[in-house]
Formats: sequence, C-alpha cells, structure tokens
Amino acid sequence: MFGCLVAGRLVQAAPQQVAEDKFVFDLPEYENINHVVVFMLGTIPFPDGMGGSVYFCYPDQSGMAVWQLLGFVTNEKPSAIFKISGLKSGKGSQHPFGAMNLPQTPTVAQIGISVELLENLAQQTPVANAAVSSVDSFTEFTQKMLDNFYNFASSFAVTQAQMTPNPSEAFIPANVVLKW
Amino acid sequence: MFGCLVAGRLVQAAPQQVAEDKFVFDLPEYENINHVVVFMLGTIPFPDGMGGSVYFCYPDQSGMAVWQLLGFVTNEKPSAIFKISGLKSGKGSQHPFGAMNLPQTPTVAQIGISVELLENLAQQTPVANAAVSSVDSFTEFTQKMLDNFYNFASSFAVTQAQMTPNPSEAFIPANVVLKW
Repeated sequence: MFGCLVAGRLVQAAPQQVAEDKFVFDLPEYENINHVVVFMLGTIPFPDGMGGSVYFCYPDQSGMAVWQLLGFVTNEKPSAIFKISGLKSGKGSQHPFGAMNLPQTPTVAQIGISVELLENLAQQTPVANAAVSSVDSFTEFTQKMLDNFYNFASSFAVTQAQMTPNPSEAFIPANVVLKW
Repeated sequence: MFGCLVAGRLVQAAPQQVAEDKFVFDLPEYENINHVVVFMLGTIPFPDGMGGSVYFCYPDQSGMAVWQLLGFVTNEKPSAIFKISGLKSGKGSQHPFGAMNLPQTPTVAQIGISVELLENLAQQTPVANAAVSSVDSFTEFTQKMLDNFYNFASSFAVTQAQMTPNPSEAFIPANVVLKW
C-alpha cells in the first residue's frame, strides 16, 4: 500500500505492518538522511473517509523512541516529501505507536504510517518545517520568513526626527526592505 | 527500471521507452509542480559503468521543447529529488533527446532519462538549484537568499549625514538587518 524513499537510496515498498492500521519503514543510518518521500503505491486506496498520518521516529540519547508527526498522505494527496534533517533534536509529539514497542537501534530511525479517520488527521499539527512538497511550501516558507523579517526590522524603524545623533551608524530606508 | 513521483501525486512506474536507452515520463499540469522524485525501481540495475542523466523538458512559448539537465541517478545513488518550479523560464541545454520529436502539449512537461556511460555523465553540468536532495540545500538556499538580501539592502544604506531631510521616511538601522 505504501512506499518510502530516502533521497539518494533505493525505494522501499514493503513496510513492516505492526498493527492492522500501522505500517513502519526502517531508515538505517538516519543521521545521513535529509529528505524522505512517503507515497501510496497506487494499488490500494485508503478506505472512504480515511487517510494516513506520517511519523518520523528516532532514538533519543537514552535509546527511547521519539515520535514526530511529519504530515499526511490521503487519496487526494497520495505522496509527500519531508525534510527530516532538522528534526533530529526536536521534541516528540503525541503518537499512536505507543504500544508497538519497536526495537530501537542507535543508527536506525523509522517512518510510521497510521491509518486514521480524516477528521482525526485534521486535528493534528505536524512539526514545523518538515513539509517540503505541499504546494509552494518552499515559497510560502521563505515569504513568511521575509514577512517576519519585515515586521521584525520595522519594529526598529525610526524617522530622522527620532534619531539620536550618530553620524557613523548606517540606516536602510524601510521601503527598500518592503520592496524586496 | 525507473519510477517518477511528483510530490503530492501518485507515483508513475511505467515510463514510455522512446529509444533503447531513453525513457520519458509525462508530467501533466507541470505549472503546478514543485518537486519531482526520480528513482530506480530496484528491479534492474544499470549495466556496469552506466548511469542515467535526468532531464526536465517543457514547452516554451512557441511550443518548442526546452530540455534542462537536472542531475543523475546511478546504481550507487539510485534516487534524487529535483525542484523544477524555478526552472520554467530557464534556458535549454544540450541533450540527447533531439531525434525523439516528442509531441509537445502546452500543459504537459516531461522527465527524460538517458542511459549513458558514467564517464559521459561526469562531464555534464546540471542546471543550478535543481537538486534538492543534496546536503542541506534548503538551508543553503535560504542563507544565500538572506546574504543576497543584506547585500541588496546595504547598497541603499545611508548615514544620517547623507540623509536628505524627510521627517516621515522610516529607516531601519543596518545592524538590525545584519543581526537577523
């Protein structure tokens, strides 16, 4: 039903089925992984009203599994690219793999897919910055970053009347930042 | 032998074989595509000493095919993620699909894979910024963008002595931009 591809490596199309509605791919040498693609093989769709939440699981320093929600795949959006290289030091989130007791090996992480009701998925919030593939997420991310920057920089904006005299300090007209 | 996945869509595992050593995937509605994953299915490896060059082909305004080299897949690196959304206005490059005369439809682009000697691949230079899966290209890109921005904004920097009197124009101290 699912495939998983680590950029640069061979595709995996045979997850371990750890429960009726839960599937796990091993990611060996996960410290070297930047991007992971999770996709439906196109053979079996989700049942009506169902979709899959996609988790990244890695062992923390004490060997305990830390799970992070990356995002979703559904019949309407049957594939997604996630960037996991920034997540390795992040905090864990709620996850439905609690009872699985997956064996943890220091260098092996997992991708877990949990088949759930779409309305449950809609209430879950993936970790920030994991989604690479959603429509223009890259552009949106950089746009958001720039908006944040403009708001940040503007909070320091002064007019000439408010300036304390300091002939050497350089100033940038605010409209230059805005236009960019 | 090859699979192709547009982020968000169903995987394609059946390219059109347009020559003994050339394979083509159609990408409908390519204007909406950001990322494409190209991978070997794992069934048949490249012959010894061979690999695949991966091209993106799209119709220019007059309907002519423009080909751009995205990168490579090999037995050692059997998958790659490419960002094509920034390439649509780029120039074409040399390519080995010249004689194929692929039909061009305004909204359909192609991924072409050409099986070639590894030593030939080593002499080809992919277009800039297409490879997503190399180490931290995302971070590097945003860092580069911010560097560009600082250089851009700094070119407008003035000191108070240079300012033309205009009490209403807002200014941002340059060190705020740099610190951010």
